[in-house]
Amino acid sequence: MLKILEKHINAIVPMPAADFQELTTYVEVVSLNKKEYLQELDHYSNDQYFVLQGCLRMFTLNEKGVEMTTDFALENWWISDHKSLLQETKSLCAIQAVEKSVVIRMSKQNEVKICERFPVMYAYFSAVYRKAYAAAQYRNILFKLYSKEEIYLQFSRNFPDFMQRVPQYLIASYLGLTPEYVSEIRKKSIS
Amino acid sequence: MLKILEKHINAIVPMPAADFQELTTYVEVVSLNKKEYLQELDHYSNDQYFVLQGCLRMFTLNEKGVEMTTDFALENWWISDHKSLLQETKSLCAIQAVEKSVVIRMSKQNEVKICERFPVMYAYFSAVYRKAYAAAQYRNILFKLYSKEEIYLQFSRNFPDFMQRVPQYLIASYLGLTPEYVSEIRKKSIS
Repeated sequence: MLKILEKHINAIVPMPAADFQELTTYVEVVSLNKKEYLQELDHYSNDQYFVLQGCLRMFTLNEKGVEMTTDFALENWWISDHKSLLQETKSLCAIQAVEKSVVIRMSKQNEVKICERFPVMYAYFSAVYRKAYAAAQYRNILFKLYSKEEIYLQFSRNFPDFMQRVPQYLIASYLGLTPEYVSEIRKKSIS
Repeated sequence: MLKILEKHINAIVPMPAADFQELTTYVEVVSLNKKEYLQELDHYSNDQYFVLQGCLRMFTLNEKGVEMTTDFALENWWISDHKSLLQETKSLCAIQAVEKSVVIRMSKQNEVKICERFPVMYAYFSAVYRKAYAAAQYRNILFKLYSKEEIYLQFSRNFPDFMQRVPQYLIASYLGLTPEYVSEIRKKSIS
């Protein structure tokens, strides 16, 4: 299953099979049941996660105790709270499996070691972070330009697989809508 | 003035002065008047900008023709529309000088050349993109957790210099508030 990460790296930078083999000694494969946590709320982040199979989400809790989903990661996406990782502050977010998942866990200490041992990985992570930043910038623009209903419909058109896999109440919590309202939009868009 | 970029790079990765000298042949220094554009709306992005002096903003236009500011960049920040750059699609955003500014323009072609010539720059850009992504993630969390009024007050406490330099109507457009509402919050918080 680690082949998925090998393929992801090689699509960005060339990495000989023997080097990748050595790289895997710096990471850990973790299997998760649905709703299992990789990181609890209000804890220090020390790891990044790469999804081999399944789906993760990151969420925070508002003052009323309502979970607000801030990010999702499907296969081939890295996820973590980078502010908490970089600044060594407690994370406002938790990371949880949306469905039964298998992920790679890479500690920040081992990310440094991996990049020092295989400098080509700087180029890999540069591309990964840039793409994640581009997606975050674009999401920010969409949220400024469109109503939540329009964003829901755009998501449905652009990411049908994602919308199928992720429970409706989590999509609602990502878009800042109530599940009831999402249900209404769906009925309207189907009719 | 290029010293500012040299210092920024050296705070992340060591770069000999001679290498930096050669690197500068791949970039261009651009002086801008207040409100001058680096990139117009609905154009293809080809460049990234590093602020040596002054302040830039990125904004989009909603369907009513209202400008919505999506990003700011002060000294030592890079700014560009990465989705447009990476996917070679027209940008939904324009980039404009908020005040008289001096910036470095680096084309995406020259970014590739710079990184190939000085591989240490992969590590530099990896750190730059990661920090930008961390800031975007954090902003997304803040906007989910707090009211716009609370975010305005947090900004005022955390970035007093920024709030002093950037006109109030631009802060309002960044937070999705009317200038009148920002004016009210300010009066309330002073009294």
